[in-house]
Amino acid sequence: MEVVQVLHMNGGMGETSYANNSLVQQKVITMTKPIMEEAITSLYCRTFPTTLTIADLGCSSGPNTFLAVSQLIKSVQAVCRKLGKQPPEYQVLLNDLPGNDFNTIFRSISSFQDKLKNQMGSSFGPCFFTGVPGSFYGRLFATSTLHFVHSSYSLQWLSQVPEGLENNKGNIYIASTSPPSVLKAYREQFQRDFSYFLKCRSKELMGGGRMVLTILGRKNEDPSSKDGCYIWELMAMALNDMVSEGIIEEEKLNSFNIPQYTPSPLEVKEEVIKDGSFIIDRLEVSEVNWNAYDSEFSPSDTLDEGGYSVAKCMRAVAEPLLVSHFGEGIIEEVFRRYREIVADCMSKEKTEFINVTISVTKR
Amino acid sequence: MEVVQVLHMNGGMGETSYANNSLVQQKVITMTKPIMEEAITSLYCRTFPTTLTIADLGCSSGPNTFLAVSQLIKSVQAVCRKLGKQPPEYQVLLNDLPGNDFNTIFRSISSFQDKLKNQMGSSFGPCFFTGVPGSFYGRLFATSTLHFVHSSYSLQWLSQVPEGLENNKGNIYIASTSPPSVLKAYREQFQRDFSYFLKCRSKELMGGGRMVLTILGRKNEDPSSKDGCYIWELMAMALNDMVSEGIIEEEKLNSFNIPQYTPSPLEVKEEVIKDGSFIIDRLEVSEVNWNAYDSEFSPSDTLDEGGYSVAKCMRAVAEPLLVSHFGEGIIEEVFRRYREIVADCMSKEKTEFINVTISVTKR
Repeated sequence: MEVVQVLHMNGGMGETSYANNSLVQQKVITMTKPIMEEAITSLYCRTFPTTLTIADLGCSSGPNTFLAVSQLIKSVQAVCRKLGKQPPEYQVLLNDLPGNDFNTIFRSISSFQDKLKNQMGSSFGPCFFTGVPGSFYGRLFATSTLHFVHSSYSLQWLSQVPEGLENNKGNIYIASTSPPSVLKAYREQFQRDFSYFLKCRSKELMGGGRMVLTILGRKNEDPSSKDGCYIWELMAMALNDMVSEGIIEEEKLNSFNIPQYTPSPLEVKEEVIKDGSFIIDRLEVSEVNWNAYDSEFSPSDTLDEGGYSVAKCMRAVAEPLLVSHFGEGIIEEVFRRYREIVADCMSKEKTEFINVTISVTKR
Repeated sequence: MEVVQVLHMNGGMGETSYANNSLVQQKVITMTKPIMEEAITSLYCRTFPTTLTIADLGCSSGPNTFLAVSQLIKSVQAVCRKLGKQPPEYQVLLNDLPGNDFNTIFRSISSFQDKLKNQMGSSFGPCFFTGVPGSFYGRLFATSTLHFVHSSYSLQWLSQVPEGLENNKGNIYIASTSPPSVLKAYREQFQRDFSYFLKCRSKELMGGGRMVLTILGRKNEDPSSKDGCYIWELMAMALNDMVSEGIIEEEKLNSFNIPQYTPSPLEVKEEVIKDGSFIIDRLEVSEVNWNAYDSEFSPSDTLDEGGYSVAKCMRAVAEPLLVSHFGEGIIEEVFRRYREIVADCMSKEKTEFINVTISVTKR
């Protein structure tokens, strides 16, 4: 499987689209706002550039695409108002893999700009949007051209399924039953990918440039601990049920693994230190409930809706990967079973995604 | 009709796509190569930037999207080889309206880059592609960030259908039977649009930056002369036939006008001089036969194939405009008739598009 070709969130604006099923990711961007705000205002006030260049890596397609950028711009506008300064021009670079639905993004830019202008008033200057297709595990931007890089819930995706997962039978990611060789293969792939990511960004960011990365991760140092891989173990359950009923071939399942790694804060920190081009300003861990609706519904609704919404969210994220390996035919059934398994699990235990956020400055 | 929303070449890679029906446009880019080459090498040799930023405005989707850029990059690489200089990084900005099929472009960038690398050898440095959706009758890029702007067969499109065309009954563009008020309305719309285009680009280009624009135009100073509007008069014939047969309502046809203006070299020159930010280096006129295959087939094939291929080319260009006004239903029939009319006309007279090319330097 070529991750660059296959991995993308479900496009369009339909029932199973990422645009309509990414509330958890939205929550996370909102939660990390103070960290972004601190980074961008400190950057802006040190340099006061006439054009402020912001890149969002793994921007996806939907309301979240503009959320982080909009928060960043609002922070800068607020500082300008406070200081009585003329706000900068904004150059916004939206990156994702070439399979991402850029057409949908591009067709909504004009209404987003109108909204921004309405909110910001007359002092809001030109804001230029460009789409940058390509893997962030490679160079994407010209040398020393970026002021600010943001990425949320993207860097847990690896550039490829690690090699050496033959013994991960019955699992689709690291799981409690994965042998140590599997954990090692995944960890090393993360290290290679993330260190190359840092190398590329260090060339593209100007000196003093800032970067805030939020990665779906884990707290526990053991990669096979529940907090980093449970959501995929539940999907493996659904797939294994279908194997035992003869709907999916066992061999087909055994050869499927998700190109993802949920790192611990320490693992993230270690790569940044090894790279050496960045100063770490903040490194924080937060949690978000699987059920993004958790405070808005009554408990009984919550559990049911919750299972439904997490399963839909995971479908919007993982469907292209599953289709590419198993074909279209099994998709409805996998997610029907998955939804039940997830709902059951959520009714019995606390279920959270762990977010690792790191804020750094380019030396 | 909102031109920004409606106007786009037919997307995808299918039978009626622009990608498969844009041979004339391809020829024109190839024909104007010497002008582009002179402009980019002179620019490059004056400044030797480490990153060379090139924008293509109205890039469409298909093989032509990369053609001009590829010619420009090859010119610079050749100069670098000759001078023994390390080639620059390239930053390529591909612009078109938001309705353009950027997804198809983005999914072909990686194979285009591989091809470039193969052709250029190991000295070929990083080349970064970004998509910039939006109307070029407005700001698209940050201030003073562009070295080179190219646009081919795009600036004849207006930002809107001019107002005051009520008396253009039975026509869909300027025609021999159009009253003077219609010619005036079209010309003034062109002047407003093109002067604003120049104003925007003059802000975005660096001092000394270059711009090469090729516009579908005319030689004759009279806008209703055949060389600027005949191709649309033939389409109006097909539509009028359908009105007389009751397939299209007369009122529907009377309210349809193409948002295009084919300027003369003098009209282009006048706006550049009025604007005042650019020095005119070259202003040239060339012709290209409607039948892009003209030298490759035997005469009898040529006429038949020619009518077919021009009609298909015009369909790839105009279908979204026609669909938006008349609906899907009439499309096949319009283009069946149009093909016959065009083939008949090509068998009787010399049929050519006129290209106006201007090469300018930002003061």
